[in-house]
Amino acid sequence: MQKYFIEQDKLKAGIIDTDDAFHITTVMRSKIGDQILVGDNSKTYLAEIKSLSNTLVTFEIIEERTGNYEMPVFVTIFQGYPKGDKLEDVIKHGTELGASEFIPTIMKRSVFKLEPKKKASKLERFNKIAKEAAEQSFRTIIPSVPDIKYLKEINFDGYDVKILCYEESAKQGEASNFKAAVKNLKKGDKVAVLIGPEGGIDDSEVEYLESKGFVPCALGPRILRTETAIFYALSTISYEMELK
Amino acid sequence: MQKYFIEQDKLKAGIIDTDDAFHITTVMRSKIGDQILVGDNSKTYLAEIKSLSNTLVTFEIIEERTGNYEMPVFVTIFQGYPKGDKLEDVIKHGTELGASEFIPTIMKRSVFKLEPKKKASKLERFNKIAKEAAEQSFRTIIPSVPDIKYLKEINFDGYDVKILCYEESAKQGEASNFKAAVKNLKKGDKVAVLIGPEGGIDDSEVEYLESKGFVPCALGPRILRTETAIFYALSTISYEMELK
Repeated sequence: MQKYFIEQDKLKAGIIDTDDAFHITTVMRSKIGDQILVGDNSKTYLAEIKSLSNTLVTFEIIEERTGNYEMPVFVTIFQGYPKGDKLEDVIKHGTELGASEFIPTIMKRSVFKLEPKKKASKLERFNKIAKEAAEQSFRTIIPSVPDIKYLKEINFDGYDVKILCYEESAKQGEASNFKAAVKNLKKGDKVAVLIGPEGGIDDSEVEYLESKGFVPCALGPRILRTETAIFYALSTISYEMELK
Repeated sequence: MQKYFIEQDKLKAGIIDTDDAFHITTVMRSKIGDQILVGDNSKTYLAEIKSLSNTLVTFEIIEERTGNYEMPVFVTIFQGYPKGDKLEDVIKHGTELGASEFIPTIMKRSVFKLEPKKKASKLERFNKIAKEAAEQSFRTIIPSVPDIKYLKEINFDGYDVKILCYEESAKQGEASNFKAAVKNLKKGDKVAVLIGPEGGIDDSEVEYLESKGFVPCALGPRILRTETAIFYALSTISYEMELK
């Protein structure tokens, strides 16, 4: 059973009239009387389907669903803009793994030109992927992808912990910075995790990020692809903070 | 700089005459005098390129390269056969994250028919992906994909720890089995990690796996896709055993 995020007024009215109606009716092959989860970015309810078609599903709320599906820290992923569709994988799996926010970050070695005309449609697509992954993974909130930024435009103030995933640290055998940072996390902390694009992080960028309070960290001894690094970072934060 | 895995006799002779010659010459645009890493499944050497073309690269070994890039435990991933190309992603990223072996496992809810004719070419492709990912991530060994098996054909004896990634555990709020298993790992342990296909694991399969010593574990409170679960399992084993 997956959660469908819907707007407040439609939640009150008990209707789903977006693409989700098609998903419920045709993809999931739901029937009248089946249960679904509905909600907004703060609450989740168990509901029963009262009628359905590809364009309109009506439901009745049975009860509020409690349970905590959100990380106890707010993790923003600053992903050095990678090639091809990798950013979509990062957003999809990163959402499952509990990230709160993604900022696609254009860095020196990003092979990507920001075409202002295409920015809005790209952001729309990224946010759609985040919504679908949030629904599928039982998230209470949908992580946001508010903007695509150049590294130097970003304001890194306000983060309690700043982790720079850095492959040169791995090559040099550094093996304690990441664990020290994760072990020290406290509930409610705002965490920035920055990962370079495929070509890595330019020396001048490392220097700049260190001046902003980032700690270069190796994520184990092997060299991870850019899209694999955030899986490692998010999984281990969950392991440290969510498992007993 | 990435490692090229080559056969013993060619390592001695100092030649690379496989697809890797094309990779070194045309993809990496290496030049005479550039350094590369070469080796077999036990050793890695720093070498200097002496001549190159798309079909033949010759090199001279400079020195043996030490450093430990392998997990201190042997992890076999039993991946419930998923749809589409997901298995390739599991092998690619799982190799970066330190897995030793992958057994694509046909389970009740796998939407996959094993066509005997295609098995050999599938295994060839999977092993090629593992080799490339091992080279890119500095692995000393190439993980193997020895066979595609039906669940009931597999012999699970000989594993010290058997982890069943189970989404029903996550839904029920179980949050301690996985961490307990990982915390108890000892250097040299053989670990089996089993993950169901997209549709999940059938109740009868859960029962069967429990009878074989598997412990059902939630990987955090969110529901992970089948391909995301192994990223979580491998990352956290690395975090626990490889980071200080």
